[in-house]
Amino acid sequence: MKLGVCYYPEHWPEERWPTDARMMRETGLKCVRIGEFAWSRIEPEPGRFEWDWLDRAIDVLASEGLEIILGTPTATPPKWLVDAMPDMVALDRQGRPRGFGSRRHYCFSHDGYREEAKRITRAVAERYGQHPAVVSWQTDNEYGCHDTVQSFSPAAREAFRVWLAERYGSIQALNEAWGNVFWSMEYRSFDAIELPNLTVTEANPSHWLAFRRFSSDQVLRFNQAQVDILRGRSPGRDITHNAMGFYTGYDHFALGEQLDVLGWDSYPLGFLEMFRFSDSDKIEYARTGHPDIAAFHHDLYRGCAKDGRWSVLEQQPGPVNWARYNPAPLDGMVHLWTVEAAAHGAEMLCYFRWRQAPFAQEQMHAGLLRPDGEPGPALAEAGQSAEALAALGDIGKPVRQAAIVFAYDAEWITQIQPQGEGLSALWAAFDCYSALRELGLNVDFVPPGASLEGYALVVVPCLPHVPEASIAALRGSGAQVVIGPRSGSKTAELTIPDALAPGALREVIPLRVVRSESLRPGLVHRGDGWELTRWLDHAEVDAEAELVSDDGVAACWRSGRFRYAAGWLTGSLLRQIVGRGAEDSGLEAISLSRGLRKVTTGRGVFWFNYGPGQAEVDGEQLGRACWRFVPT
Amino acid sequence: MKLGVCYYPEHWPEERWPTDARMMRETGLKCVRIGEFAWSRIEPEPGRFEWDWLDRAIDVLASEGLEIILGTPTATPPKWLVDAMPDMVALDRQGRPRGFGSRRHYCFSHDGYREEAKRITRAVAERYGQHPAVVSWQTDNEYGCHDTVQSFSPAAREAFRVWLAERYGSIQALNEAWGNVFWSMEYRSFDAIELPNLTVTEANPSHWLAFRRFSSDQVLRFNQAQVDILRGRSPGRDITHNAMGFYTGYDHFALGEQLDVLGWDSYPLGFLEMFRFSDSDKIEYARTGHPDIAAFHHDLYRGCAKDGRWSVLEQQPGPVNWARYNPAPLDGMVHLWTVEAAAHGAEMLCYFRWRQAPFAQEQMHAGLLRPDGEPGPALAEAGQSAEALAALGDIGKPVRQAAIVFAYDAEWITQIQPQGEGLSALWAAFDCYSALRELGLNVDFVPPGASLEGYALVVVPCLPHVPEASIAALRGSGAQVVIGPRSGSKTAELTIPDALAPGALREVIPLRVVRSESLRPGLVHRGDGWELTRWLDHAEVDAEAELVSDDGVAACWRSGRFRYAAGWLTGSLLRQIVGRGAEDSGLEAISLSRGLRKVTTGRGVFWFNYGPGQAEVDGEQLGRACWRFVPT
Amino acid sequence: MKLGVCYYPEHWPEERWPTDARMMRETGLKCVRIGEFAWSRIEPEPGRFEWDWLDRAIDVLASEGLEIILGTPTATPPKWLVDAMPDMVALDRQGRPRGFGSRRHYCFSHDGYREEAKRITRAVAERYGQHPAVVSWQTDNEYGCHDTVQSFSPAAREAFRVWLAERYGSIQALNEAWGNVFWSMEYRSFDAIELPNLTVTEANPSHWLAFRRFSSDQVLRFNQAQVDILRGRSPGRDITHNAMGFYTGYDHFALGEQLDVLGWDSYPLGFLEMFRFSDSDKIEYARTGHPDIAAFHHDLYRGCAKDGRWSVLEQQPGPVNWARYNPAPLDGMVHLWTVEAAAHGAEMLCYFRWRQAPFAQEQMHAGLLRPDGEPGPALAEAGQSAEALAALGDIGKPVRQAAIVFAYDAEWITQIQPQGEGLSALWAAFDCYSALRELGLNVDFVPPGASLEGYALVVVPCLPHVPEASIAALRGSGAQVVIGPRSGSKTAELTIPDALAPGALREVIPLRVVRSESLRPGLVHRGDGWELTRWLDHAEVDAEAELVSDDGVAACWRSGRFRYAAGWLTGSLLRQIVGRGAEDSGLEAISLSRGLRKVTTGRGVFWFNYGPGQAEVDGEQLGRACWRFVPT
Repeated sequence: MKLGVCYYPEHWPEERWPTDARMMRETGLKCVRIGEFAWSRIEPEPGRFEWDWLDRAIDVLASEGLEIILGTPTATPPKWLVDAMPDMVALDRQGRPRGFGSRRHYCFSHDGYREEAKRITRAVAERYGQHPAVVSWQTDNEYGCHDTVQSFSPAAREAFRVWLAERYGSIQALNEAWGNVFWSMEYRSFDAIELPNLTVTEANPSHWLAFRRFSSDQVLRFNQAQVDILRGRSPGRDITHNAMGFYTGYDHFALGEQLDVLGWDSYPLGFLEMFRFSDSDKIEYARTGHPDIAAFHHDLYRGCAKDGRWSVLEQQPGPVNWARYNPAPLDGMVHLWTVEAAAHGAEMLCYFRWRQAPFAQEQMHAGLLRPDGEPGPALAEAGQSAEALAALGDIGKPVRQAAIVFAYDAEWITQIQPQGEGLSALWAAFDCYSALRELGLNVDFVPPGASLEGYALVVVPCLPHVPEASIAALRGSGAQVVIGPRSGSKTAELTIPDALAPGALREVIPLRVVRSESLRPGLVHRGDGWELTRWLDHAEVDAEAELVSDDGVAACWRSGRFRYAAGWLTGSLLRQIVGRGAEDSGLEAISLSRGLRKVTTGRGVFWFNYGPGQAEVDGEQLGRACWRFVPT
Repeated sequence: MKLGVCYYPEHWPEERWPTDARMMRETGLKCVRIGEFAWSRIEPEPGRFEWDWLDRAIDVLASEGLEIILGTPTATPPKWLVDAMPDMVALDRQGRPRGFGSRRHYCFSHDGYREEAKRITRAVAERYGQHPAVVSWQTDNEYGCHDTVQSFSPAAREAFRVWLAERYGSIQALNEAWGNVFWSMEYRSFDAIELPNLTVTEANPSHWLAFRRFSSDQVLRFNQAQVDILRGRSPGRDITHNAMGFYTGYDHFALGEQLDVLGWDSYPLGFLEMFRFSDSDKIEYARTGHPDIAAFHHDLYRGCAKDGRWSVLEQQPGPVNWARYNPAPLDGMVHLWTVEAAAHGAEMLCYFRWRQAPFAQEQMHAGLLRPDGEPGPALAEAGQSAEALAALGDIGKPVRQAAIVFAYDAEWITQIQPQGEGLSALWAAFDCYSALRELGLNVDFVPPGASLEGYALVVVPCLPHVPEASIAALRGSGAQVVIGPRSGSKTAELTIPDALAPGALREVIPLRVVRSESLRPGLVHRGDGWELTRWLDHAEVDAEAELVSDDGVAACWRSGRFRYAAGWLTGSLLRQIVGRGAEDSGLEAISLSRGLRKVTTGRGVFWFNYGPGQAEVDGEQLGRACWRFVPT
Repeated sequence: MKLGVCYYPEHWPEERWPTDARMMRETGLKCVRIGEFAWSRIEPEPGRFEWDWLDRAIDVLASEGLEIILGTPTATPPKWLVDAMPDMVALDRQGRPRGFGSRRHYCFSHDGYREEAKRITRAVAERYGQHPAVVSWQTDNEYGCHDTVQSFSPAAREAFRVWLAERYGSIQALNEAWGNVFWSMEYRSFDAIELPNLTVTEANPSHWLAFRRFSSDQVLRFNQAQVDILRGRSPGRDITHNAMGFYTGYDHFALGEQLDVLGWDSYPLGFLEMFRFSDSDKIEYARTGHPDIAAFHHDLYRGCAKDGRWSVLEQQPGPVNWARYNPAPLDGMVHLWTVEAAAHGAEMLCYFRWRQAPFAQEQMHAGLLRPDGEPGPALAEAGQSAEALAALGDIGKPVRQAAIVFAYDAEWITQIQPQGEGLSALWAAFDCYSALRELGLNVDFVPPGASLEGYALVVVPCLPHVPEASIAALRGSGAQVVIGPRSGSKTAELTIPDALAPGALREVIPLRVVRSESLRPGLVHRGDGWELTRWLDHAEVDAEAELVSDDGVAACWRSGRFRYAAGWLTGSLLRQIVGRGAEDSGLEAISLSRGLRKVTTGRGVFWFNYGPGQAEVDGEQLGRACWRFVPT
């Protein structure tokens, strides 16, 4: 795995550039990501380009042997462009224009802006597409950041109508698919369809799901336009994009198909604080991150990436500016996170950012250097990581053990229709991932329908819509399979299948869900060492009730190598069921001590200790924020 | 009491209709409510009506002897109508149009839409007004659902100005009545008056109260227009409407006057989850509902109904889709709820809905049938209920014991000016109702000014504006009377009366409130077995201080058969005072075990056990979710 | 200190005026504040003035020897003015017009309205400027109340652009100062700059800080226009304005410079309930107010006032209407608050209001009289206060002991960029104030750069931008100095200084902050009797680590008479550090019992007991809600 860094030459005096480049090389960094926010410097006025500074910056970096990842600057269109095309901005769900003054102030469906994005992409690609130091391109930056995938603009409405006409063919087909007869919501033409926001009460969930699919597709169309230009003008270079954490606004499997390498931005401390972890975890792991945050995304995006090529395009090097609270990593954590990415198979990791900027929105976001240009605490850990990775040599790839089947539309469906507050396919997947990792297992993420070959254990946490191919994949696999509730409960249009839940999954486990309950926290059914919480399926079943609560509620049915959970896959019930699946799978599953994680590669075993205490590994103590590799 | 069901033939293939109709009859159902959301099928294009399908649907149902309750479809105007009159939609309090895509997207004050509503009502009434199977009409559906009574549209503003001119006669009178001199808020003409939303800080409370009255009147005017058409074109049929739970957006006493039968929609589990019950109640009663939810509304709407004729137009049969969490009723609860409605005097109860729809917004809302057309758990309980009701024969009507005086403008006033967070006349009424019911007493709701004859105990929980006639009714009654704080504290215009609170109530209890405090939870005054919380009146009194706290605060004054509570009528203080009133009234009041409720009719006593445990009734055990009738 | 009252003759029948005036005099009141909301009565139609009623009201009051404080009525422009200039209203942060119907519905940047405000000010000043009874003018009312300083209107945008052009001279200078290169946020002209609201994610913090400064300046410009008119037309009268509690929307030091006397409005119970006090404090002090609320503002506004002349223009006399919960003061508290204001050096205190109005928004706000015109509980305490103040005679001024350095832009910066949720310069100042007052010390507030002469102890709770003059003042002082974190961490433009935090403060304490963390509640470092919470600075230090936690974290560094806190100045760490500073200062610091407060003047010592229990003062018991003066 190569190390790199994100750098903004436009923020610093030109005379400093050589020093920075030299220090990067001396730290052991090989790559430098630049340019993704520099539109106003590249094209300060409409049509007038200033390339000189960027030419020189690239040359200075290249002169130290650094490889350049060049970003298209389309995430930050300059003010003059917004002034020329005021309707290029997105409208938020409340119908308000999302104004200039930060970033991502564009609507994916605005034709004028898409042309401008292509124009600037062409200009940059033509200038640097053949530059020997430019080895990779990043399209735009963090699609969807600040909730920007969905736009409720006139442009989006117009594009949505076109998209719907293409998908459904006739308005009668759409009305039928959505069940618009329900509240006289039938349309007489595609031109009558509105966006689903600002309705009196919730819009038809099928309407919302179509809008979510459309919004995802608009991102993919936008990205593909840049990819096409870059492939034409800069052949032989990898194209990448930086995805985010716990973000599902578009289909990352589909994005992965368009790219050579799927990147993501890893901020373990910020994500811990901002996402749904318990208050006690937020304190206990405040300076390490929860042990599954980074790994979950490493494995998820490896699964989303075409050919499994992925990287970390931004790695947290210290406190950030954007979380509710922003503590610093423990000494050693930046190094641990770096090695952990390598263990999970990353081909590159870039720290974000080289030097803390003393101005603007992210002035409190740490870099490898302090704002005054002196080394910050993470610089040494970056250097230490470069040395350690070199010393490790070929570490092998993670071996196949367990798989989680995950789909982006699963999360869209549970967001649109949670039925019980907070129930989410994404977080079901995270909980299942944690449970598997606490057993010391490697986990891959697989989209529904893809092959499950090589896995001894497969978990389907929550897959409301199960495509046909997925049934075949489950049948074709010899794995132990755990299926969570709501799986197979919906058609592709977010309606209930004729055969009821779990729909076509009946082919693998003979049951029919005839009633589902969502349960408020505190309403539980207790069994021997487990509690059923949050959800309860009642079913007509031709299978063994493997877990039954003290008050007689079946919590898990089993039929051959398939288990179906009647309760939500979380907490003690999840651990109970996954533990049984793992046992039956023949995998070597062990109960790791709190905060300890294991990655098994073709060459050995990595151990990572997120704490809170020391852990015992192979009879020796492993300190908090420490890792070890045991070759096989 | 007849049983019925809500049915949507337009959702199902025509070939299924006969099966459904037969199953309804076999279950013992007598009535079927249809049509209220079918505008887009009745009139798929402007002016083009399609009656055939509905003719056939009615005939199929009638052929099984079912009586039809036909709804006017005005709650769901089709898209073509909105496109033709875009300004027919309401604006929400933030000034945003409430768009098409769900239901109730109309403004009650829009003249154009009201004409359209009359047009479609005329069309339906002309088609089916004389049909022998059509025995009843329902106007619209759930007026006010999704917070739709108040609209802040230009049409509403215009209508409000006209309404104000009619009410006040001159702008000087309005300025005087509202005290507009206060912050130079004086108007020079009615045309200068704005709606009270989006002011810098709160608008004048008198302004808000006028707007609440106006908004209620607009609902009544809209309803009356349909009633007039239906009476003319379909004589001899009952006209009804389905009111909601814990909803006070319009004056239900006034609506009751326009109708023959007042209906309401009973969702005990959804209401428990969504309204202000404690977390522990939400868990303990998750699958039964709080024991007073259904009964409170039965008794309230019986009081609102002209001649006391009322029904349940929608009865929850299983999990719903719209609460935060949606558990299933315990076995037996659908049956218990059914019998309980009969005990309280309903003349009909319709389950909502016949068959769970597999599509659109309510696809997770249970029906008597599952989405696949097979019987769901509630179907058997519906059948069991039909048999039980037949077996019971004439059960008599609830006898008069206690009365609660309630007015809709009381709740409007406390919402507009709570003075202490969460203080509400509606919830004071609910708490008083619960306290009386826990003593085993029947409760009637009576509007201020109506006769109180026949009641031994009267509670006035919170009646800020006390009309003159109400004083006469209190004086004329021989009942023990408990009056809660804030009663008589306001004029009809939401100003403080010259004589201070309790205004004209001084005629029955000689005190004058000279200072009122609202108290944050935790700030209490403790007495012997009670706590004064939330509110404290200080008064000049010529009466006995019946309850005095350890720190010397008078919590209740008594003068003859009248008691005045200085503290909010809730919790232990409420139980203390109401218990004393009951004792003095001579009523047989007993302290029921938790979750047990009693209804005394002219023919006997009903017992209903909501749990959590078994209850002892007449020396025998009564299980949770069970009921018993003991004839006298 | 004189006593007075706020009076609204326009609310009452003219025949009552003489009674009111006589009662005021008999109570011992000397001043009466009138007129500030009376525009619609003074000018009921455009250009038509009605002075007669006001002439007579003033004469009636003057006839009892009362001095008049006359308000300009610009906080409540009448409806006819809004109708004539609809764009005079402010837009809120969401872009919605803030409509007529309450008060303060104007935009400070609207030229048309400012002219109207000057016109009505001229008219009133010409009518009464020479009236012998008019001794003082109040401009407008509570600038900023209901969040009205910031407006996001087109008028504000236009004025902001002009203001920016004046401040920065060239657009290049602005781009450079704000670091607009960061996300291609560079502007090509001032006309391209938008207001910072409704951006996709946060706008540039420098952009926000400029907007905060601009918004403050617009208030000052508005006020100055009235001051100029009043000085010209009513020479020899004091000009005042009534500031609010815990409010920092504009620079009160700058406002103080424009006025003769700075007033403020003291509502101890309402402020307790609405601001960030613990739930237990909100209950324990519900009827007294937290012991530092009133005193904090007395001392703060004394510091803001030119020449230290300040007064209380509104004093809570009973329950208010506007807090979440509105309890009544304990008997004696209105008297205590009155004497306490005198002890802190007020020259006048006016109760708000004379008589409770029975109508409009504040009908539940107590007055000295009840709505029915009879004496309320506070009237006697007002009279008692007048007598007590007369008996006390010359009480001297508070002596100098400790100073807190506070700046309004400090709070703006922490609001714009808290970095850890809830971290605030204002509340840091309040906490420091409390800690000093619990030690029995007098506290003055001093703006950065002003002389610190005479103080033995100086606390700089949180001063992100430290002007050069402030360093000189700190050096010039011989005081013990405690500096809190983030001080010196920002330039005037809200960027990080080249030398890092604490910037120029390095001149007094030799350290450089190289990393800062914000910590969620519960993430603590414990020392001997203290806990470091909320914030942690890591520094390169050439000073003694005076406090080190059990896990080795330095919590306080000391160099000579300067201390720098690495943790947030709150809780036990604050008390630890301030206690050491006080000890080293030679001040007589004692640990007061809970709720007891002390003010040392040139003539003696005042003691105020806010409770909860009795306190011992000089060997004698002092009851709750009681005070004592011990002359020296």
